[in-house]
Amino acid sequence: MPATNPTYRLRRSPPAVAIIGATGAVGVELLTILAERDFPVGELRLFASSRSAGKTLPFRGHDIGVETLGENSFAGIDLALFSAGSGIAKQYAPVAVRAGAIVIDNSSAFRMDPAVPLAVPEINAAALVGHNGIIANPNCAAIIAITPLWPIHRRNRIRRLILSTYQAASGAGAAAMAELVASTRAHFAGDSFAPRVLPHTYAFNLFSHDTAIDPTTGYNAEETKVINETRKIFDDPQIRVGVTCIRVPVLRAHAVAVTVECESPIDPEEARALIADAPGCRLVDDRERNHFPMPLEATGQDSILVGRIRRDLSDPSGHSLALFVAGDQLRKGAALNAVQIAEMLLP
Amino acid sequence: MPATNPTYRLRRSPPAVAIIGATGAVGVELLTILAERDFPVGELRLFASSRSAGKTLPFRGHDIGVETLGENSFAGIDLALFSAGSGIAKQYAPVAVRAGAIVIDNSSAFRMDPAVPLAVPEINAAALVGHNGIIANPNCAAIIAITPLWPIHRRNRIRRLILSTYQAASGAGAAAMAELVASTRAHFAGDSFAPRVLPHTYAFNLFSHDTAIDPTTGYNAEETKVINETRKIFDDPQIRVGVTCIRVPVLRAHAVAVTVECESPIDPEEARALIADAPGCRLVDDRERNHFPMPLEATGQDSILVGRIRRDLSDPSGHSLALFVAGDQLRKGAALNAVQIAEMLLP
Repeated sequence: MPATNPTYRLRRSPPAVAIIGATGAVGVELLTILAERDFPVGELRLFASSRSAGKTLPFRGHDIGVETLGENSFAGIDLALFSAGSGIAKQYAPVAVRAGAIVIDNSSAFRMDPAVPLAVPEINAAALVGHNGIIANPNCAAIIAITPLWPIHRRNRIRRLILSTYQAASGAGAAAMAELVASTRAHFAGDSFAPRVLPHTYAFNLFSHDTAIDPTTGYNAEETKVINETRKIFDDPQIRVGVTCIRVPVLRAHAVAVTVECESPIDPEEARALIADAPGCRLVDDRERNHFPMPLEATGQDSILVGRIRRDLSDPSGHSLALFVAGDQLRKGAALNAVQIAEMLLP
Repeated sequence: MPATNPTYRLRRSPPAVAIIGATGAVGVELLTILAERDFPVGELRLFASSRSAGKTLPFRGHDIGVETLGENSFAGIDLALFSAGSGIAKQYAPVAVRAGAIVIDNSSAFRMDPAVPLAVPEINAAALVGHNGIIANPNCAAIIAITPLWPIHRRNRIRRLILSTYQAASGAGAAAMAELVASTRAHFAGDSFAPRVLPHTYAFNLFSHDTAIDPTTGYNAEETKVINETRKIFDDPQIRVGVTCIRVPVLRAHAVAVTVECESPIDPEEARALIADAPGCRLVDDRERNHFPMPLEATGQDSILVGRIRRDLSDPSGHSLALFVAGDQLRKGAALNAVQIAEMLLP
């Protein structure tokens, strides 16, 4: 795909912005965050599938009509924020780029394309410079797990990660959040409930992530994304990652139990100091009050909460730490990270 | 404490049985399981705190009155099943033993006492022979995590374990289960809810296990139990264990994400075959249907469900596996394991 912009930045400010998938959980959050952060927006166009045509969404005191996405939707658009899944991204992101837009895509469609930057601004903002029109927003569990690890990795290379996720409904979209609520209400009412969005009953239950299992590795697609994207974002293809992705009955913030092994011995106090200074992170590590990262406290927050920082007692070499993180899946895991990328593109 | 029985077995059958903590979540489950398994019961006496005096609980068609526990409660009792916490166990288990009973205690009071067997019948039934009147029932998360690992450990010694738990409300008792329900109902009603049993809001949330943190290690008491008890049950003080214990909004079955490193390379297929034959375990590992262990399906089951068996991709040596397990915390994690121990004591 040829570069259509002479620099990596947007061609004007305020840019004309399109949100593709505007009525979804991430789409709505994109609108909220653009407003919160006073992101300059000239024209704003909202796109969704034909089911949502005719709806309106509020932005800065105006009701914006939702349009059906089509081949001619991107005329005059400078910045296209996609949160509509891989299929739509593969079909329409190249169309948007040909029309002169920069695309920031929240799907997995382009993440592992070597020509596409996969960016967490706190980690690899420099990767944005090389884009050819499309920039990929990473997997939410990956962003939340590894943003706090970056300052450790820079100081003392991480050679192995073992992650167990506690992922919220929002990662599967607004319909999954609604299904968690409906399933729980049905439980209380004593009604039967047939899950439709997710493959298993969600009320007071948890289950392995609902993506297909690779028959060779036994890892599901979510886990494979976390492994591959960690290596690409850290620009370190040698990091060894083991991960188990589990969906828990939580609405919109992911948590991750992290075991990290560094190349040299690392002291938990040194890690705590590094994380305390890490952009986008906040220490929540109060042992006396038993107060550590929780999805409910991460919800609505921009920062990833980090705590339970301690030596991994299974590694007597002193190279390993354990910690626990929680971050808002819709914000830092998706919409906030995309808007942070967009901010770096402003001329 | 001197041995009061000439053999390790109960002095008669059917034994006179006392349940201490009979009105609690584990106590009620003990009654259910004794009945289900046709455990021979002569006299049955139920004890609880004075708050529960006057209540009755059904057993085999009779309503049994709940008595207040006291120094003279154990006259004529052969088998005392304690599920009333460490304080009560420390105070009354020795009284019961002096009265001639064998105590099976579900608390942590005696678990690490070298004179007390800590038993999972599928793993170390032989340890029961050496008891001096008190037998300890292990921590629920430990039982559920390690029972499936025993056949692997016997074949190919496990030298390192990394565990992340997804623990149900029931581990904190019936009041915590009620609090999860009440907290979730309040969420739906839009009411505020002040947690009383657990330190944090439970509805659609999760949090680090609510036990005190050891200021030296940074591990909480639950995690420390899992580490120490794994070594004692496997009779292998060298196993290195790292563990993060998290409470999730699930009612009564724990799940655990397990990474296991063996002394020699191990093939996932070999592990699958070993676990398929493991007593007390059931393979739930259907990759095509994305059907793996879930708390809801483990609830009410005797077996620990085991799945997601695969190579740990973070260990290229081939010594490590990842898997995911779920087991009913009140059954195999507590009451069932205690009754299985009692069955081995029948004369």
